Amino acid sequence: QSNNAPSSYDPHEIAITGYLQTQYQRAQSGGINSFSGGDFAKNSKDRFMIRRGRLKIDRADKYSSIVFQIDATQNGVQLMDAFIQLHQPNSKQLMFTAGLFNRPFGYSIVYSSGYRDFPERARVFQTLMPRERDLGAMISFRPDNKAFHFLTAEVAVINGSGHSARDYDSKKDIVGNLGFKFDSLANGKLHLGFGGSIYKGYVRSNTDTLMRSNGNGFIKDGNTSYTDSYAKRDYYGANLQLQYDNPLGSTSFKAEYIGGKQPGVAGSSKLAGPLASQSFSAQPETNLYLREFSGYYLWFSHRISKTKFTALAAYDVYDPNNEVNESEIGAANNNTTSGDIKFSTLGYGMSYLINGRLKLTLYNEHVVNDKTQLPQYLDDIKDDVFTARLQYRW
Amino acid sequence: QSNNAPSSYDPHEIAITGYLQTQYQRAQSGGINSFSGGDFAKNSKDRFMIRRGRLKIDRADKYSSIVFQIDATQNGVQLMDAFIQLHQPNSKQLMFTAGLFNRPFGYSIVYSSGYRDFPERARVFQTLMPRERDLGAMISFRPDNKAFHFLTAEVAVINGSGHSARDYDSKKDIVGNLGFKFDSLANGKLHLGFGGSIYKGYVRSNTDTLMRSNGNGFIKDGNTSYTDSYAKRDYYGANLQLQYDNPLGSTSFKAEYIGGKQPGVAGSSKLAGPLASQSFSAQPETNLYLREFSGYYLWFSHRISKTKFTALAAYDVYDPNNEVNESEIGAANNNTTSGDIKFSTLGYGMSYLINGRLKLTLYNEHVVNDKTQLPQYLDDIKDDVFTARLQYRW
Amino acid sequence: QSNNAPSSYDPHEIAITGYLQTQYQRAQSGGINSFSGGDFAKNSKDRFMIRRGRLKIDRADKYSSIVFQIDATQNGVQLMDAFIQLHQPNSKQLMFTAGLFNRPFGYSIVYSSGYRDFPERARVFQTLMPRERDLGAMISFRPDNKAFHFLTAEVAVINGSGHSARDYDSKKDIVGNLGFKFDSLANGKLHLGFGGSIYKGYVRSNTDTLMRSNGNGFIKDGNTSYTDSYAKRDYYGANLQLQYDNPLGSTSFKAEYIGGKQPGVAGSSKLAGPLASQSFSAQPETNLYLREFSGYYLWFSHRISKTKFTALAAYDVYDPNNEVNESEIGAANNNTTSGDIKFSTLGYGMSYLINGRLKLTLYNEHVVNDKTQLPQYLDDIKDDVFTARLQYRW
Repeated sequence: QSNNAPSSYDPHEIAITGYLQTQYQRAQSGGINSFSGGDFAKNSKDRFMIRRGRLKIDRADKYSSIVFQIDATQNGVQLMDAFIQLHQPNSKQLMFTAGLFNRPFGYSIVYSSGYRDFPERARVFQTLMPRERDLGAMISFRPDNKAFHFLTAEVAVINGSGHSARDYDSKKDIVGNLGFKFDSLANGKLHLGFGGSIYKGYVRSNTDTLMRSNGNGFIKDGNTSYTDSYAKRDYYGANLQLQYDNPLGSTSFKAEYIGGKQPGVAGSSKLAGPLASQSFSAQPETNLYLREFSGYYLWFSHRISKTKFTALAAYDVYDPNNEVNESEIGAANNNTTSGDIKFSTLGYGMSYLINGRLKLTLYNEHVVNDKTQLPQYLDDIKDDVFTARLQYRW
Repeated sequence: QSNNAPSSYDPHEIAITGYLQTQYQRAQSGGINSFSGGDFAKNSKDRFMIRRGRLKIDRADKYSSIVFQIDATQNGVQLMDAFIQLHQPNSKQLMFTAGLFNRPFGYSIVYSSGYRDFPERARVFQTLMPRERDLGAMISFRPDNKAFHFLTAEVAVINGSGHSARDYDSKKDIVGNLGFKFDSLANGKLHLGFGGSIYKGYVRSNTDTLMRSNGNGFIKDGNTSYTDSYAKRDYYGANLQLQYDNPLGSTSFKAEYIGGKQPGVAGSSKLAGPLASQSFSAQPETNLYLREFSGYYLWFSHRISKTKFTALAAYDVYDPNNEVNESEIGAANNNTTSGDIKFSTLGYGMSYLINGRLKLTLYNEHVVNDKTQLPQYLDDIKDDVFTARLQYRW
Repeated sequence: QSNNAPSSYDPHEIAITGYLQTQYQRAQSGGINSFSGGDFAKNSKDRFMIRRGRLKIDRADKYSSIVFQIDATQNGVQLMDAFIQLHQPNSKQLMFTAGLFNRPFGYSIVYSSGYRDFPERARVFQTLMPRERDLGAMISFRPDNKAFHFLTAEVAVINGSGHSARDYDSKKDIVGNLGFKFDSLANGKLHLGFGGSIYKGYVRSNTDTLMRSNGNGFIKDGNTSYTDSYAKRDYYGANLQLQYDNPLGSTSFKAEYIGGKQPGVAGSSKLAGPLASQSFSAQPETNLYLREFSGYYLWFSHRISKTKFTALAAYDVYDPNNEVNESEIGAANNNTTSGDIKFSTLGYGMSYLINGRLKLTLYNEHVVNDKTQLPQYLDDIKDDVFTARLQYRW
């Protein structure tokens, strides 16, 4: 289920695996920004689309392997993964990975969308690490020693500009991850995982001014010229996974928190608010806004007894700016914009495993924002999304 | 030969099939609009090109299958097909298809370009259903009962915006098809197929004005604001295929007619006439022109005795506007444009099967338009195209 | 090692081979133009990137074969090769190739980047034949007769506009190549190859003026209108390869020279100098500058004894304009620009074969230009590049 691995480490010639997700979606209003498969076209409130069309082409030798992953949708054909992995002949204790791979941060980023119960990753992770991947190199350590086999440690050096760029600045970013996994506790009925991660990165300022929070919005800092200076992009994360097999079925609970500093820009007519705090793949041209953010998700899923049905419930929050109250956003002279608005999403639905390869998911997301003083966000905007998805994975 | 199927329904792991068409073309003049592989570059009257480079990657289980098809040419790498197909374990009587697939309209749209005798589909189909595909879901019915096995019925709900868009409006389109096929009549010498299709769709108006035909051109209808209103996009089609195996070889005749309503725009310096009545993949920004169109093709091919030669002859017509006479197009104040001009194409040539996989086709197309009052179309424009194509299919 | 061949001519169903090159690079300054994997982003002096991600999908029959090659990197997914190849059932003496293939010019163009010792082709070849490929047809001749088996002759007709265009003019270009290869001289210790090539092509002028060299720069030639006229694009090349297996290891020396006429444009703020003399994939809109150029490379590599280390040293030169002295470039009224500057590159490094599939290369390039009178090139610009590359090939 980790994207940072070949389909199997057993030596094999080319193997092609993959999955296809095709879906119908209906939004509460046309043209909304959405993290459920991307924004809707201007006048469109429903659509058919290929959400993900993945072909993974890999190969494994005794002590090296190679992975290509392609995403083919109506939006085009893109490279998702392309990495070389090295390890000792009889041990995967120490691994070196180089190329384009998933950032080793937390739990949900690296976890394959073909296996996830829920249709999408949480808004906070889509914003901070769009498309999950980056270019660089990684060292992973998982002790062979049975007593410590529960441990995984990873450190990566990456561009920081995502999966489709050759960096736009001269500082590299660092990601570190520590994970603990206990697979069969309580007579094999309880599976437990938890971990913590850090991200230390930088965003180059292209203007001589930084926008700093004063607790009530932003003030211009033009004391010195900040052109070519670097603003900190620091994240801290913690995650927990619990699965309990019980007479009523299999119940799983997953949660992940992330907080830190994200240099973004102002929301504007050219750049919709939810995208103002994203991690950029190219140099942001306008003033950087230094924000302290936080976000999390809670995922609850329950496979009903021995049926093929799984009940799904999720709640996630992303607050790009912890320091400003929603009611003050858009107030005169405090320089806040739609890029500072907090969004919460309550998702619920059901999935049905038609067979081992086919899964039908019906899922509704209720997206909520508090009232602000911005004309377009005087009230909760109507941006709920219903998704009916069919997936084939092999 | 249907694009809406895996390479085989027999359960199999990943299979890669495909074909490559590479060709040299010479046009009568440089920079012409062409439906023989796309418009020529501004000052170019001949070219080498990859017309289609198809890789079909599919997999079939007992009761489901998956198909990806990629088109790789000098123009880029694009997704053509990506669909999941479900049926009962021991019957393909009832099938459900979801994803990106060929619109089930008539005969030539769904028929693979790797098997077609003629280099291209008719102009009318290329205009109304560019690249054949759309996103949505389809139900197909073909009775297992031998007595009714000649029948195929299909209904699909689709975006209507084609193979590379996630719809631009909030109405979905419906396609229905009924086909009859009798494979071995007259002692197995005669093969007969025929059918009919409908398309019920919509195009959103982005302006407050519609251009309606008054029999002699278009008049502005701005009585009410038409912004956000939907114009009808309705097609009706009928098709016939005949193949007769005789002492002189194998003779085949195929014909297809389509007519109906197509909301287009005006031809202009920015949008060449032949593209003004195309089906759009994005919201047309300018006034919609409501046109009644008709078109057809006649395909005649004859495999010469037991040789590897096949003689080809075709005639096709597309009249985007049935209600206006060509001689009146461009007349003062009737709002007609190059988008209303009828084109007829006479094609003739020869193909040679070098071996089971290789086919060489030499084909000439004589494209004719009547005189209009438009400065660029005062006479038949010089837009014939000769094609020499080599195809490898496996 | 030739790109113009399937992975094997032995009849086989679909085979997927390929290689992945992932690398870290550090430039002497940010935003430089570079021929070591492409220009650096404006403010970036180091980067991780996928240099090449190649998947070759081919198939061979008794007397025909087909090859697709895809390049998948952070820049997108592109078609590199797509050709059909025909030969007699039991002989590859005479071959016909059609589609998208490597221009049969000299040695380094056709030689696969997955096998080359050095990270990149020389600047002169990258400029004159960007991405190596073009669309067209080729005849190759290599005598079956053992006495003449050392000979290869090739002639191709191509668009001349490269691997991603369907030509922009109406003249095709011709490439001819003659190669001699003696594989086991001096008791099998010496391997020798040499050859010569010509390229006869044309570039269409889009303006009524040509810029002609007067030995001291360019003068305007507007005597007659040159719009729609064609300027000559003529290259002559010679190449030599020597490999000597000796007690100290295996030493190889390769050299290639190319000279001729290249119609380019002026370097400008919109088009960086090193790109002004490139071969264009679309019609150049501005005045053509007729230049006489020359360039060469010297490649020296030595596999150290029986170790897995190979020492690398290279020197290459590209002078886009033989007729002007660097010190006069940018002088008043002589119409010279950054497009006329000569660049020399001294490269040196080491590669280490980790195993049969994996290769690590550390390589530094020292790029030198002479002083000119142009403000940006008053001195040698700081455009050295260091590359650390990991390659997996299978």
